[in-house]
Amino acid sequence: MKKIMNAPENIVNEMLEGLTTVHKELVYRVPGTSVIAKVAQSAGQVGLVSGGGSGHEPAHAGFVGDGMLAAAACGPVFTSPSPDQVLEAIKVADSGAGVLLIIKNYSGDIMNFDMAKDLAEMEGIAVDFVIVDDDIAVEDSTYTQGRRGVAGTILVHKILGAAARSGLKLAELKAIGDALIPNIKTLGLAINPATVPEVGKPGFELGADEIEFGIGIHGEPGYRREKLKTSAEMATELVDTLERSISLEQQSIAVLINGLGATPLMEQYVFANDALRLLEAKGASIVFKKLGDYMTAIDMAGVSLTVLTLTDSRYLDWLNEPVTTIAWN
Amino acid sequence: MKKIMNAPENIVNEMLEGLTTVHKELVYRVPGTSVIAKVAQSAGQVGLVSGGGSGHEPAHAGFVGDGMLAAAACGPVFTSPSPDQVLEAIKVADSGAGVLLIIKNYSGDIMNFDMAKDLAEMEGIAVDFVIVDDDIAVEDSTYTQGRRGVAGTILVHKILGAAARSGLKLAELKAIGDALIPNIKTLGLAINPATVPEVGKPGFELGADEIEFGIGIHGEPGYRREKLKTSAEMATELVDTLERSISLEQQSIAVLINGLGATPLMEQYVFANDALRLLEAKGASIVFKKLGDYMTAIDMAGVSLTVLTLTDSRYLDWLNEPVTTIAWN
Repeated sequence: MKKIMNAPENIVNEMLEGLTTVHKELVYRVPGTSVIAKVAQSAGQVGLVSGGGSGHEPAHAGFVGDGMLAAAACGPVFTSPSPDQVLEAIKVADSGAGVLLIIKNYSGDIMNFDMAKDLAEMEGIAVDFVIVDDDIAVEDSTYTQGRRGVAGTILVHKILGAAARSGLKLAELKAIGDALIPNIKTLGLAINPATVPEVGKPGFELGADEIEFGIGIHGEPGYRREKLKTSAEMATELVDTLERSISLEQQSIAVLINGLGATPLMEQYVFANDALRLLEAKGASIVFKKLGDYMTAIDMAGVSLTVLTLTDSRYLDWLNEPVTTIAWN
Repeated sequence: MKKIMNAPENIVNEMLEGLTTVHKELVYRVPGTSVIAKVAQSAGQVGLVSGGGSGHEPAHAGFVGDGMLAAAACGPVFTSPSPDQVLEAIKVADSGAGVLLIIKNYSGDIMNFDMAKDLAEMEGIAVDFVIVDDDIAVEDSTYTQGRRGVAGTILVHKILGAAARSGLKLAELKAIGDALIPNIKTLGLAINPATVPEVGKPGFELGADEIEFGIGIHGEPGYRREKLKTSAEMATELVDTLERSISLEQQSIAVLINGLGATPLMEQYVFANDALRLLEAKGASIVFKKLGDYMTAIDMAGVSLTVLTLTDSRYLDWLNEPVTTIAWN
């Protein structure tokens, strides 16, 4: 294993120290916790809290800031933050209007965020939650019942963040989130696996000429392994498969092309050229696009393609509203 | 070689198509060229033009936009754009006040940008240039006489871009650039090499437990190969070596920590935690920080550390001014 790090067991702590030092104008670390919060909470707004295992940077700390998350709880690598850490995030995020949790659908996250919700309610904080399960690759998976939550989560942060800033109440945001999430579908592929620092070797093996479709952001198995293909063939597989889960023809859509951590922008843009063309050929009208590393899997090489059908006219405005975060610009 | 691409010989063309499709609100491709220009040139402002070989994304197209570059000429991978392509960039960037070329110090770039300058002057466009040679690793190198131009180039784009937007004239910008560049020093290291698509195998070999200090952004040799070290040891080597080229004690500095293409943010932040602490221990006051992939070497894994000594009080204002580009935010 070759990584720029010190002791593997300190990597999350040191990462958070580095992140809060570099971006101290935007975020800070709640003392004694692994919670990253925005420097000024917005009184009267519902606070959005997300988080999960580390190793998905810039998710989720990179999306803390005005117009997106109020705080993110950062667990160990690929491991849910404990309930007490999520509770700390809830407490710092609450400015009186309550807190909405945005949870990726993994069993550990669901359990710990739910426990934190109970603890917070005992302290008198109103808490509700939405669960993101945008990955259409497999129905159940290593760490989930039901579909996994992956890069589409960032679109949930953005849309609900703008909605929260507009002054909507907790129950309204919960309803918007629940209506939004079924319109977001993601599918990814890996060409090289990720190595968890404390493990020291790749989480799975891929042959020198193999790729895997539908792989999860922790290296969970996908739905098919194949020989290396061209970008156009990869994009065709992802778009065709997405089309079976989401309507594209005559739909206005937002698209997120997401690098998984070790994929250079050159490859992401080549893939975008193929994927966007194919989506348009399906009859979709692409009115919003993002490309880059948003939800990574440490040093996995690969991409994911997220499509959001803009079934609510407010989604696009909320996506376009400027925010002040590390990683959404 | 595993890459998300189609035919290697089309990779730059397809990348530019993807980039201009994703970011069409910001930039466009000048028809029939490999030049990326900002959607609206600013009449009366000196236009800044940079470019070079591709494979360094987001450099340079990612820095085209209001307050930074007017246009970027994108050559083949790791190969200078031809004089006629640079000429096209100059022509689109000129709105009557002339054009300043920001050239990284490589023999091919110098030759081709200089030839383009001559051609543009024959067409009546006022052109001047600055040469960036911020890499302190080696005195001469594979493709250079003198020091190489690397990630510090992005700070030149930013500072001169803000200065140009403020209405300064070509001669003034040339003088500011010439005074600025000696204050920018960069040093990098690689833990894994890069693979040029058309070559199909890594440009150099590094043992499974080896790293190389001072490596160039095309894989040119550095100054020392060593066994894998901790992040703190890597940062110590870079900071100590930088200190021999640039004054740190009691200096206000700007710092750019740059990922080389395949280095996850987790590792970049761990390195930042070490490097920033060490710079402060040398007596420097860090008043501006950036971290991320700014000047990459395709899929090389590694980081570079750039220090700019803020010898002119305007530098910091120019760095902080908001811009509208793909990659500087």
